[in-house]
Amino acid sequence: MKYADPARLAALIDRLATISDAGPGVTRLAYTPLERQAHEVFADHMSALGLKVWSDAAGNTIAERQGSEDLPALGTGSHLDSVPRGGRFDGIAGVVAAMEVATILADSDDLHHRRPLRFVAFAAEEGARFGLACLGSRLAAGLNTPDDLERLKDADGVSVAEAMRGVGLDPALTGEARWDPQDWYAFVELHVEQGDVLERAGLPIGVVDTVSGSTRLRLDLIGRPSHTGATPMAGRSDALVAAAQVVLAADAVAGDARHRGTRATVGELRVSPGSVTTIPGQVSLSLDVRDVDSDRQRRTAAEIVRHAQAAGDDRGVRLDYRLIGDSSPVVLPLWIRDVLTAAAASHGAAYRVMTSGASHDAQIINKIIPAGMLFVPSRSGVSHVPEEWTSPEELATGVDVLLSALLRLSDEGTS
Amino acid sequence: MKYADPARLAALIDRLATISDAGPGVTRLAYTPLERQAHEVFADHMSALGLKVWSDAAGNTIAERQGSEDLPALGTGSHLDSVPRGGRFDGIAGVVAAMEVATILADSDDLHHRRPLRFVAFAAEEGARFGLACLGSRLAAGLNTPDDLERLKDADGVSVAEAMRGVGLDPALTGEARWDPQDWYAFVELHVEQGDVLERAGLPIGVVDTVSGSTRLRLDLIGRPSHTGATPMAGRSDALVAAAQVVLAADAVAGDARHRGTRATVGELRVSPGSVTTIPGQVSLSLDVRDVDSDRQRRTAAEIVRHAQAAGDDRGVRLDYRLIGDSSPVVLPLWIRDVLTAAAASHGAAYRVMTSGASHDAQIINKIIPAGMLFVPSRSGVSHVPEEWTSPEELATGVDVLLSALLRLSDEGTS
Repeated sequence: MKYADPARLAALIDRLATISDAGPGVTRLAYTPLERQAHEVFADHMSALGLKVWSDAAGNTIAERQGSEDLPALGTGSHLDSVPRGGRFDGIAGVVAAMEVATILADSDDLHHRRPLRFVAFAAEEGARFGLACLGSRLAAGLNTPDDLERLKDADGVSVAEAMRGVGLDPALTGEARWDPQDWYAFVELHVEQGDVLERAGLPIGVVDTVSGSTRLRLDLIGRPSHTGATPMAGRSDALVAAAQVVLAADAVAGDARHRGTRATVGELRVSPGSVTTIPGQVSLSLDVRDVDSDRQRRTAAEIVRHAQAAGDDRGVRLDYRLIGDSSPVVLPLWIRDVLTAAAASHGAAYRVMTSGASHDAQIINKIIPAGMLFVPSRSGVSHVPEEWTSPEELATGVDVLLSALLRLSDEGTS
Repeated sequence: MKYADPARLAALIDRLATISDAGPGVTRLAYTPLERQAHEVFADHMSALGLKVWSDAAGNTIAERQGSEDLPALGTGSHLDSVPRGGRFDGIAGVVAAMEVATILADSDDLHHRRPLRFVAFAAEEGARFGLACLGSRLAAGLNTPDDLERLKDADGVSVAEAMRGVGLDPALTGEARWDPQDWYAFVELHVEQGDVLERAGLPIGVVDTVSGSTRLRLDLIGRPSHTGATPMAGRSDALVAAAQVVLAADAVAGDARHRGTRATVGELRVSPGSVTTIPGQVSLSLDVRDVDSDRQRRTAAEIVRHAQAAGDDRGVRLDYRLIGDSSPVVLPLWIRDVLTAAAASHGAAYRVMTSGASHDAQIINKIIPAGMLFVPSRSGVSHVPEEWTSPEELATGVDVLLSALLRLSDEGTS
């Protein structure tokens, strides 16, 4: 059965996309008035359907639809914040899916669920502003303290705590946002894939088995700046030449046969002084290594650092590096995955069980409640850019599989 | 004979270094009130010695010391502006040398010159602000029109003409700043080397025979931005990986055996969007190729562009490029070089005849008047950075050689 309405989904996506700072794309950063405004749209939608809606101290918004029995709840949802000049689907797709599931259930006389359903819009999932991703879900999972919120700052020196107070949230009360695992049964997040695996395979659905871990480093290469014309090639200590070797080493190491599944990227690279006529004296770059194998993840990062060290040694360029983040791969519970694949199969939706290279609220929530993830295709595999796109029809297929999975999970484990 | 006083030179360098925007280093950009203030120091110094001082419509300041005969004048000097966060010697060394020569001549009863001597502080030599270097000397050589001054703009969109008006200069009158070649005999500029050739060889003096030409290109590499975690290595179009290949190609091509004397540098490189978790979608970089052989200069630039094209083709990254500047190498007149080497030898100063990789006012002036150049050592070969350094003693040696050369040139060709 097809329940989800592509036009209704498209209208919600469009409406949320208008809540943005100057473009191109969507800019709706964590703990800003714009993010709160998007949460209002979610809350109003759920209230209009007659659901009980509340926000917690972390800024997460939750809407509950009662089940036919008094059991631990089943959750679904995602986040409403974006990266700067990002797209309309990353996070939003999963929230809009939750809104559509709530609409379908409200309109239907035939669809029943024993467990209460909770629709969740998480706050502050993107690490773009404060460096730490999944803040809303981390607070729900009890992984951070109010102290952390005072310490973490954005590029303008504004702490998470200050930003929260600025939108009417009280960081001192975030302990109260913590979810009680006894009160929850499972959680499923629908998200856009952000890669092109589904598109290339022509598949509408991905079921996530593992979420990659990520090791992030900051590397500073310190050479000697000087005049491009006056300085002979021999004896230069060009920090950018050494950095270029790091970029290529990361690409080559992750691309070789021993590293199926490893992804290594230099995404940020700043050259100083950055003048046409000055040899680069310093380069600061980020290295992001992802893998579903935690050993290989850290070994690969170490291997690239060794390449950087050697490149620097060859050229009189000093290397400083530091770890800026390290998370291990997460294997999501098999039994939820089985429900998701069964839901896809029953819906006639071809699927692939696949890894997620990106991190998500669901993997954080999985620390306290069993969680699963559904992917829908990303056109050209692009994400975190204005060109992000998933068609309304693809989104509708995802919603129907999500609905089916939630109904199955709602009855699962009950007598 | 030693005439120049290291302590006096050091005091002048220190005094001029205080005329700067916020540090580190010296920031005294072309056509700003700070640059005019430095010109005032120069003018006051020369006026106090009893010289006739004037400024032209281009902002160049000239002081004349009469010769014993009414002949075409002999000039020496350099510039007083700096790059942002630059050093205290680039340009300033040559102006301070002129100030010291004027002081020595004013104090001496024994040193005579037939030709009038003109001490010149050029305006706006650094291309850092408006993209075009040597504006003051170019206007003196009649190479630019008031129209050019309206067209050339700095990063804030301020045209040269507006900047000139802002410091009391009238760009419409710059035609009057043009030097009459009949009125000048020759010009000699002392400058810091900006490389480490003299330091490595342990030599106090360089005599420039050739100034490198420069071909400058802007290369834009356009790939596909996407999520670092979600996008497999295969099928990425990472603009930074392609750019890294360009950086290494430039370094390798200029460093190979066919290219003795070629210098190729990527000095500026900007990554977009520049996020730890996004594969670089676009990279814009500058390429600066210098050579004393004009054919090889352009062939090398073309060769690096071909490498960039191939690197892009391999990775689905599009290359756009455009020429942003091209100047041919300049050979300075042999007869002036002979006077400079004779002056160094008579002074007991070991010298090397060498090329200049950087461009200078002297090569512009050479288009209308025979010109020569003296180099003094740059510590560690660094320049355009706060660490620029030439010792007062090295500067004094340069001044003595300059003085000797000017006195020789003053009598040369007179009966």
